Amino acid sequence: MTYISINFELFKEDEAKILVSDLALQRGYGIFDFLKTVKGKIIFAEDHFNRFYNSAKELNLPIDFSREVLFNGITDLMAKNNTPNSGIKFILTGGYSEDGYAIAKPNLIMIQNPFEVSKTAINTGIKLVTYNHQRQLATVKTIDYLQAIRLQPFIKENGAGDVLYHHDGFLRECPRANFFMVKENEILTPKTAILKGVTRGKVLLFENENYLIKESDITLTDLELATEAFITSSTKNIMPVLAIDGKQIGDGKPGKVTKLLYQKLIETIAQQ
Amino acid sequence: MTYISINFELFKEDEAKILVSDLALQRGYGIFDFLKTVKGKIIFAEDHFNRFYNSAKELNLPIDFSREVLFNGITDLMAKNNTPNSGIKFILTGGYSEDGYAIAKPNLIMIQNPFEVSKTAINTGIKLVTYNHQRQLATVKTIDYLQAIRLQPFIKENGAGDVLYHHDGFLRECPRANFFMVKENEILTPKTAILKGVTRGKVLLFENENYLIKESDITLTDLELATEAFITSSTKNIMPVLAIDGKQIGDGKPGKVTKLLYQKLIETIAQQ
Repeated sequence: MTYISINFELFKEDEAKILVSDLALQRGYGIFDFLKTVKGKIIFAEDHFNRFYNSAKELNLPIDFSREVLFNGITDLMAKNNTPNSGIKFILTGGYSEDGYAIAKPNLIMIQNPFEVSKTAINTGIKLVTYNHQRQLATVKTIDYLQAIRLQPFIKENGAGDVLYHHDGFLRECPRANFFMVKENEILTPKTAILKGVTRGKVLLFENENYLIKESDITLTDLELATEAFITSSTKNIMPVLAIDGKQIGDGKPGKVTKLLYQKLIETIAQQ
Repeated sequence: MTYISINFELFKEDEAKILVSDLALQRGYGIFDFLKTVKGKIIFAEDHFNRFYNSAKELNLPIDFSREVLFNGITDLMAKNNTPNSGIKFILTGGYSEDGYAIAKPNLIMIQNPFEVSKTAINTGIKLVTYNHQRQLATVKTIDYLQAIRLQPFIKENGAGDVLYHHDGFLRECPRANFFMVKENEILTPKTAILKGVTRGKVLLFENENYLIKESDITLTDLELATEAFITSSTKNIMPVLAIDGKQIGDGKPGKVTKLLYQKLIETIAQQ
């Protein structure tokens, strides 16, 4: 039996409920973050906490618990579930609103599920299909995945594993991952109107003697110049992108640079 | 005690709960509609039902109940609550998702609250402040009100009662109401990338010997030519707009044409 934490109280999974007056249900109003644990260790906790508190602030959601209390709440949940390799999602909602519109005292819901990043995906990679969409409040990790979920049939019909948003030709991100491409001696990732992923941030800090790693505006036509591409996220680490819109990237196989960065990321995570 | 219907079962308000695995909470994924009852009669039921079923279809939410079953569910709730003048919101969510991403069997939540449209607002009106924002999936009545709720402090700071979205200068709508303006011998309402309100639809059907009532692209600068403006919704019927961005519309008082249409709408509702 998995346990779920609601406002720091633990409930059995099938008893973890909230009132329907919650603003997340009424108005899609909430933020969250997601981190993974590896062998019982929380990976990049500080980065996720920073983003979580910032997301709450951006949506005017008052938080009355400190980072320490949040951290302890997560470790309590981990102790109860005893699942050393896991993903933990913590959602902050608009709370039980009197009129279904005004923000109330937020509810904090923490859900832990068994999870390990695939060790084979670095060799199998993923294909993407592009779609013109600018996420609203892009820098805030809101619970809004309307487009992403609505587009699932579109993704399948196009033989892809995920969608890559662009805004009028300018690349943005996947719904749950950031995008990178390798071009000549540069490793580039979109810089504007995206959610800045924690893994993305780690990759941007890497140093490489042959490549400049940096944020940049990237257009759809720039993809023709890509020798490699990959996506990053807490659940994927680094995953090679083999094709976009049916067009092969480079030689259509996981690239050398991608594999190098992957190794570096694995080492960084192991040092946590 | 108010009762709430969840999947056609009635619960006391403080016991009406859903599991936190619901996709509305996890991913803001859901649609809804809202109708009012006047003296126990449902107003414009067919229009609301049409839009509800269409919204569900647009978000790939399977509905396994007929309109008749939905109608009976609403009347059961009305019988239990015995609140002849009310607003009834019916929400359809993405359901209890196994992985927090895939659509499951939707949950239907119906909430009834005592409500009567203000009879004085036609004389007091409202001020609006504009904001550049295009609602995603604009023609679908999703539960997404992230921007609307986030902008509440902005609206107050600007001394306004609500926000009027425009997209790069092209007028769209208020978060919960449609916009109209009167200009020379025309009564105009934005036609593109908006939610087509039920009340808006009724006004568009009105006939007037002096004015042509029609959909049109309207820009922010067109507002300078407006002699009157008003907003429409199920909760407001027709409400005069006295000023936008601090600039008076016409003589800054509820207009003659607005009052005429208001009377016509009241009669149309009374005929239901």
